[in-house]
Amino acid sequence: MSELPGIVVTGASGRMGRMLIETVRASDKARLTGALERPGHDWVGKDLGLCLGAGELGVIVSDDAQATLTGADAVLDFTAPSATVALAKVAATTGTAHIIGTTGFTDDDLAAIADSARGTVIIRAGNMSLGVNLLTVLVKKVAAALDEDYDIEVVEAHHNRKVDAPSGTALMLGEAAAEGRGVKLADVADRGRDGITGARKSGDIGFAVIRGGGIVGEHDVIFAGPGERLTLRHVADDRSLFSKGALRAALWAQGKDAGEYSMLDVLGL
Amino acid sequence: MSELPGIVVTGASGRMGRMLIETVRASDKARLTGALERPGHDWVGKDLGLCLGAGELGVIVSDDAQATLTGADAVLDFTAPSATVALAKVAATTGTAHIIGTTGFTDDDLAAIADSARGTVIIRAGNMSLGVNLLTVLVKKVAAALDEDYDIEVVEAHHNRKVDAPSGTALMLGEAAAEGRGVKLADVADRGRDGITGARKSGDIGFAVIRGGGIVGEHDVIFAGPGERLTLRHVADDRSLFSKGALRAALWAQGKDAGEYSMLDVLGL
Amino acid sequence: MSELPGIVVTGASGRMGRMLIETVRASDKARLTGALERPGHDWVGKDLGLCLGAGELGVIVSDDAQATLTGADAVLDFTAPSATVALAKVAATTGTAHIIGTTGFTDDDLAAIADSARGTVIIRAGNMSLGVNLLTVLVKKVAAALDEDYDIEVVEAHHNRKVDAPSGTALMLGEAAAEGRGVKLADVADRGRDGITGARKSGDIGFAVIRGGGIVGEHDVIFAGPGERLTLRHVADDRSLFSKGALRAALWAQGKDAGEYSMLDVLGL
Amino acid sequence: MSELPGIVVTGASGRMGRMLIETVRASDKARLTGALERPGHDWVGKDLGLCLGAGELGVIVSDDAQATLTGADAVLDFTAPSATVALAKVAATTGTAHIIGTTGFTDDDLAAIADSARGTVIIRAGNMSLGVNLLTVLVKKVAAALDEDYDIEVVEAHHNRKVDAPSGTALMLGEAAAEGRGVKLADVADRGRDGITGARKSGDIGFAVIRGGGIVGEHDVIFAGPGERLTLRHVADDRSLFSKGALRAALWAQGKDAGEYSMLDVLGL
Repeated sequence: MSELPGIVVTGASGRMGRMLIETVRASDKARLTGALERPGHDWVGKDLGLCLGAGELGVIVSDDAQATLTGADAVLDFTAPSATVALAKVAATTGTAHIIGTTGFTDDDLAAIADSARGTVIIRAGNMSLGVNLLTVLVKKVAAALDEDYDIEVVEAHHNRKVDAPSGTALMLGEAAAEGRGVKLADVADRGRDGITGARKSGDIGFAVIRGGGIVGEHDVIFAGPGERLTLRHVADDRSLFSKGALRAALWAQGKDAGEYSMLDVLGL
Repeated sequence: MSELPGIVVTGASGRMGRMLIETVRASDKARLTGALERPGHDWVGKDLGLCLGAGELGVIVSDDAQATLTGADAVLDFTAPSATVALAKVAATTGTAHIIGTTGFTDDDLAAIADSARGTVIIRAGNMSLGVNLLTVLVKKVAAALDEDYDIEVVEAHHNRKVDAPSGTALMLGEAAAEGRGVKLADVADRGRDGITGARKSGDIGFAVIRGGGIVGEHDVIFAGPGERLTLRHVADDRSLFSKGALRAALWAQGKDAGEYSMLDVLGL
Repeated sequence: MSELPGIVVTGASGRMGRMLIETVRASDKARLTGALERPGHDWVGKDLGLCLGAGELGVIVSDDAQATLTGADAVLDFTAPSATVALAKVAATTGTAHIIGTTGFTDDDLAAIADSARGTVIIRAGNMSLGVNLLTVLVKKVAAALDEDYDIEVVEAHHNRKVDAPSGTALMLGEAAAEGRGVKLADVADRGRDGITGARKSGDIGFAVIRGGGIVGEHDVIFAGPGERLTLRHVADDRSLFSKGALRAALWAQGKDAGEYSMLDVLGL
Repeated sequence: MSELPGIVVTGASGRMGRMLIETVRASDKARLTGALERPGHDWVGKDLGLCLGAGELGVIVSDDAQATLTGADAVLDFTAPSATVALAKVAATTGTAHIIGTTGFTDDDLAAIADSARGTVIIRAGNMSLGVNLLTVLVKKVAAALDEDYDIEVVEAHHNRKVDAPSGTALMLGEAAAEGRGVKLADVADRGRDGITGARKSGDIGFAVIRGGGIVGEHDVIFAGPGERLTLRHVADDRSLFSKGALRAALWAQGKDAGEYSMLDVLGL
């Protein structure tokens, strides 16, 4: 079915690259037309399927972004800032939608990406999960609707190898809550409660952190008010969430005007 | 502080009436100025505080709605349809906001109430809990944002004396979800799963019912999609929720134009 | 029904005393035969029911422990250490079972109580909730059955007025887990996680603290292992839990030999 | 490290076989020494790693059970009744521990397996998850400790492709609860609640069923009593649980006397 959007995956050999490839291949709304790796990588010039230990796929891994993106409808990119900035420049010339899950950009990087976005659709998001993005919108809305009688608590649980606490997503949810209330998170965040803390300060946004086993990622935002609690909860059941979010963004991008978009645009929120 | 809105409670001797009285008395944003019971009731003519087995309150229980509502800012009413319809007529003449938690109205009753609403503010809601009303709005929004890849399940838990399943609130949440998707709940509701059910039908809205102990009321709306779940959860921690919602409505009503409103208006949603 | 065990409540006017009275009165397995207050208290010499703002009960509040305990089957006591120690001495002479929910004893107090226990049944517990006591037993058992591949996390949620974190019950559960594993909690407790914590240390017992609204008390002990989680969860739905536990202990005590017992004995665990 | 127990996996090409292989290979407590498939299967005679699309492993897939089991310490078997019964006979002659996750045996099959267990260690379990087996023990114990004031509810959630309700594991947990109470599950099971059910019958064991998305499997057993709830909860985070349970059983089996064992023996419960 040649009318399906053609998708390229960059960073094909990495953990996230493999998941993106699997997601595109499993979809009946898109087809995999290319795979990129950095020059010098083992896989370059070989059949992607064979590299992955599966059967032949007819897609040859390339290190030539220009050639690979030409004619492609979207490229999925969870690599590193410098590679992503460079790829955005190419995508701007080929008109290929660039879906960016990479994080850790400097302001200069972001300016360069904004510049490339004049030539093509760029969708960039720190968390590609639809559910988490939707949750962010809901949290902001609920925080704005309820007053300080409703104590806001963010609880997150992750696997035992995670090194930072609270998670970036928990902080993002805390930011959304603070924004809904018209305050700065830094002024109201209550983290790492332990010992004689005194009564909870009204208006604070609390964080609690659970670590154990192989928990993929769970986030609760609790609004605990007089006699009732409203909890907005997200559970990630498997890590393919992010690749599926990226593919959805790629499909949404088709036919859109050049510019920079977020997952909120993709969701229509 | 005579500027605080003066509140009347009707059906003062009933379980809900007592809770409303307690809520108003505990508030620093309103004061209790009157209590109504039906003509012939024991309490009529006596001090409300003494009737309640507490100290004297200086509020005499009355059966004269017209006199009691005159000068009052709001009346809280969780009684029965006929009493509520009659009280609405009085409230329309005294300009007292009428907060109605009564349920079970006929169409004629509703027409009569609408008529009274030309003379005063009337706020009517089947569930006065802020959290549940907010949840309804969120559920509709999320159901509209997510497609049928996200299976919707409504799970509710109540005490062991409840006689119907699923709860009225669970069905209300199911309706909100169906509305968000543009379908009729009756066409997609999957209730009472048991035995060889076959795979879940895409687009269905499922219900699961838990009964036990003294659970006040818990509702989960789960959107279970590919690799993730978003759950919107409401927990009622105590039964005063409904009286607190009614008082909030009464305070909101002050200064509003005559007309019929819902808890969604009160919440600004 | 004069054969029902006769129960005395001490500290009758306090918050916990009132709850104990309500619990005994609501039970069909016991009857309230006496109420104690300290000498000089307002209520002494008056009808308990009238003091409580309810109808006459026929139970006169007394400050004479000896007279009140004579002929009584059990006394429920959530007061203060010195009062409790003194009452135990009296109970030992009257052979009245003494159910102690008081906390904060010194070693001398405990020795005095042990001494009194030679004359009557004494049941003492820091938490009278059946569920929490049972949970403690289960946690110890599970911690012993599972190895360190299962990360143990204790999560607790309480109302926003609580001043210490984690809760005493959470620490008690952590102790039970540590005991099950044959380690000291102090050596493995991981509290107040915040910032760059590094990966979770195997063998640690983590604590997470949620504060908000009017949450009565919830405790989760999570065993998060490879690919699965076992969670033992206790939810307190209302504060009458503790008075009900005390009454159950009082009923269990009937006919038992003199001595000191715990809630674990009452539960038969 | 040639002292590590040598493990054979049968049904190597199936979904569960692949997972077993992955689990054994990832373990540092065992090594994979053989793989079996039925005579005529494509993979027979080939290198297992190549069949799996991975690199060469040095393990050749065989259809000769006798030769493959000789010298092996354990064989992991999630296949079909007839194949398992036949393999047990071979394992009895080679003295290889036989870990059986296969289900659906007839009484004759079970008798044949019991016969083979005179020659080697056989461990058979319908659910190889450690957590679920432990949960079963806990549920029985708690059900015995708490009286009928504690309503028992079993809630389970699974993916949207599951065709039966409640799950087999939910029913197993219900059986454990009934056993703890000394009643028959069939007499007290309350399934598929819907409509005007009337108040909950004391002593009943209720079931609630959630279906959606890709939920691997979650089971709650709730004991909802007066003012409190105790919940025993199991969450399967990924499907490798069962293969890991099987490997643990295989390691436990080393050095044990011939005979038939269950996962409860493995757990020491």
